[in-house]
Amino acid sequence: MGTGRLEAFSDGVIAIIITIMVLEMKVPHGDRLNDLLPVLPVFLTYVLSFVYVGIYWNNHHHMLHATRTVTAAVLWANLHLLFWLSLFPFATGWMGENHFSALPTALYGTVLLMAAIAYYLLQQAIIRSQGPDSILRKAVGRDWKGKLSPLLYIAAIAATLFSPWISEGIFVATALIWLIPDQRIEKVLPRSDV
Amino acid sequence: MGTGRLEAFSDGVIAIIITIMVLEMKVPHGDRLNDLLPVLPVFLTYVLSFVYVGIYWNNHHHMLHATRTVTAAVLWANLHLLFWLSLFPFATGWMGENHFSALPTALYGTVLLMAAIAYYLLQQAIIRSQGPDSILRKAVGRDWKGKLSPLLYIAAIAATLFSPWISEGIFVATALIWLIPDQRIEKVLPRSDV
Amino acid sequence: MGTGRLEAFSDGVIAIIITIMVLEMKVPHGDRLNDLLPVLPVFLTYVLSFVYVGIYWNNHHHMLHATRTVTAAVLWANLHLLFWLSLFPFATGWMGENHFSALPTALYGTVLLMAAIAYYLLQQAIIRSQGPDSILRKAVGRDWKGKLSPLLYIAAIAATLFSPWISEGIFVATALIWLIPDQRIEKVLPRSDV
Amino acid sequence: MGTGRLEAFSDGVIAIIITIMVLEMKVPHGDRLNDLLPVLPVFLTYVLSFVYVGIYWNNHHHMLHATRTVTAAVLWANLHLLFWLSLFPFATGWMGENHFSALPTALYGTVLLMAAIAYYLLQQAIIRSQGPDSILRKAVGRDWKGKLSPLLYIAAIAATLFSPWISEGIFVATALIWLIPDQRIEKVLPRSDV
Repeated sequence: MGTGRLEAFSDGVIAIIITIMVLEMKVPHGDRLNDLLPVLPVFLTYVLSFVYVGIYWNNHHHMLHATRTVTAAVLWANLHLLFWLSLFPFATGWMGENHFSALPTALYGTVLLMAAIAYYLLQQAIIRSQGPDSILRKAVGRDWKGKLSPLLYIAAIAATLFSPWISEGIFVATALIWLIPDQRIEKVLPRSDV
Repeated sequence: MGTGRLEAFSDGVIAIIITIMVLEMKVPHGDRLNDLLPVLPVFLTYVLSFVYVGIYWNNHHHMLHATRTVTAAVLWANLHLLFWLSLFPFATGWMGENHFSALPTALYGTVLLMAAIAYYLLQQAIIRSQGPDSILRKAVGRDWKGKLSPLLYIAAIAATLFSPWISEGIFVATALIWLIPDQRIEKVLPRSDV
Repeated sequence: MGTGRLEAFSDGVIAIIITIMVLEMKVPHGDRLNDLLPVLPVFLTYVLSFVYVGIYWNNHHHMLHATRTVTAAVLWANLHLLFWLSLFPFATGWMGENHFSALPTALYGTVLLMAAIAYYLLQQAIIRSQGPDSILRKAVGRDWKGKLSPLLYIAAIAATLFSPWISEGIFVATALIWLIPDQRIEKVLPRSDV
Repeated sequence: MGTGRLEAFSDGVIAIIITIMVLEMKVPHGDRLNDLLPVLPVFLTYVLSFVYVGIYWNNHHHMLHATRTVTAAVLWANLHLLFWLSLFPFATGWMGENHFSALPTALYGTVLLMAAIAYYLLQQAIIRSQGPDSILRKAVGRDWKGKLSPLLYIAAIAATLFSPWISEGIFVATALIWLIPDQRIEKVLPRSDV
């Protein structure tokens, strides 16, 4: 079993997740600026989550590019990642509607943390399936971003005890770290028009 | 007519089903733990349904991998399966919102039962379309999982008369049986990068 | 420009339409049979619309199978068809929630009528793009189903003045006529694994 | 990295955007013409937005057709475009529900403007990635449509200070300008069955 249908299914799920998040921005009933303003925090969390899901899609894409065959372990590790990504709209909506208060922010951080762990497990499952000469292991290298992110999310969850705004700052900073695109895999792999 | 577009369409429908189920987890209005707790049963049913839909996607994928051409009977048997899968969000939402009470649990079991029957009918339609040397018939073998599951769902539906928790236990146990991936088809088919 | 991405996009839109129709079946708040019963008419309209969208997907698939290149006219005729199909969830929800009363049934018939006309226009656009030796023209033949359906929908719309149940009967009968799969194109085209 | 998965993902997101816009047309509770009439402005904005998203899909399709490899800059420019397109359902719903009043119309124009800018940035990112012999630069030519549209959207936003109906007229006129399909790329590129 190759990666074609796994990619297509993951793309479908991620495309839907990224789009239904916007449904949490409820259309206000009035038509004045004061009616629109309460939507602003929901909009800001939407931007943040859109960037995170975009990062996941981007990295997922690169990772599967370095994958040839899909074992049962890889398939379920991929569904496990999609599961945590599918909780983004809920966590985003709760944090946005409550204007970044402590518990919703902590839950948001928890979903980010679980998604990061799920991504790491998927990466390990692919590396194991590729044996000792794994091209993905070589491409990933020391993976400092993948190892740093969960620690940052844990710090952000803990920071909600003091001020959720510190947590938001960590979320934004972590997204910026990832926005520098993951060109490691592109370096190892030869160019191709997949 | 080949399997390409049938797979793509099924993937699309299943990806949407798996994702809109999460919409039944309504964002609570308050920002405290007490506001979040009522969402927990909905979350647990979501996990259960996510696993079931994941199992169906996985098995569907393997089954179409052993299929070459799509007859009209196969096409409609596939749409019939997608129909019952599309009722998962409704059945999941009703069971979750009512905290696993009897009738919603029985309805959930009924949807599982109908989806299992629809899957069996699709399998038979493909086998018939392949003639006496059907590669899928060989791959499926005695199909004890496919034959056992409907009986377990019927038992779970009946058990709601005594305690819905027995039914939930049966649902979880049946999912675990299926989580052992269906490697029968992989054994019979040669490896390929489809 | 070939048909690949047009098919993929149409599949995506149709898969979403078929799945969000189920969202009109709102999860009832109580957990008793009396709470579930009001959902029954919505469920029945959902079944009817699911079958109609399934028929459109099926026929659309066969039609594009007999198409090689996509002109601008074909592309917009296809979007025009998708537009009317996208109104199915609204028309289905309104008819179901109002238990098949006259005006919602007439609107449902109107959407069916407009979709049938849009399908015909798309077919003509493809035939024109293929020139005098159009393979689709040969495949479609006299197209009695395509010509009869609009007349039946008009009859169903008119019948809402007397009894919407006559209209529902016409809708079901028309769906059954189409359920006999469109094997005309399969006969003309050579078998291939597209 | 080729354009295949980028196209598939963009198609998925655009297909979902175009379909969830219809969810803003809430099913009315009564079954009389007076119950349906308030939906009319939402329906009209839906038609307008459907045409706009259709135009974007069409042009996006042609643009990627003239693209061979996807750099990180192109990938994020594409996600940036999808972000603004994903705000169409919200802007459409707000304008429709408030019957084309001034502020919602201005917001709608702003989303159109940002999407146009994002499209232009994506075009520039692709042209830069193709180097001095860029086939897309040749295909786009002077790009008078792409340069005129933002000016028209700004005029429409300003016109909401006088009468939102002028703005609506500009939106419709701009859509009509784009509906004349973008055949520039088709002229430069050789025909192929992509």
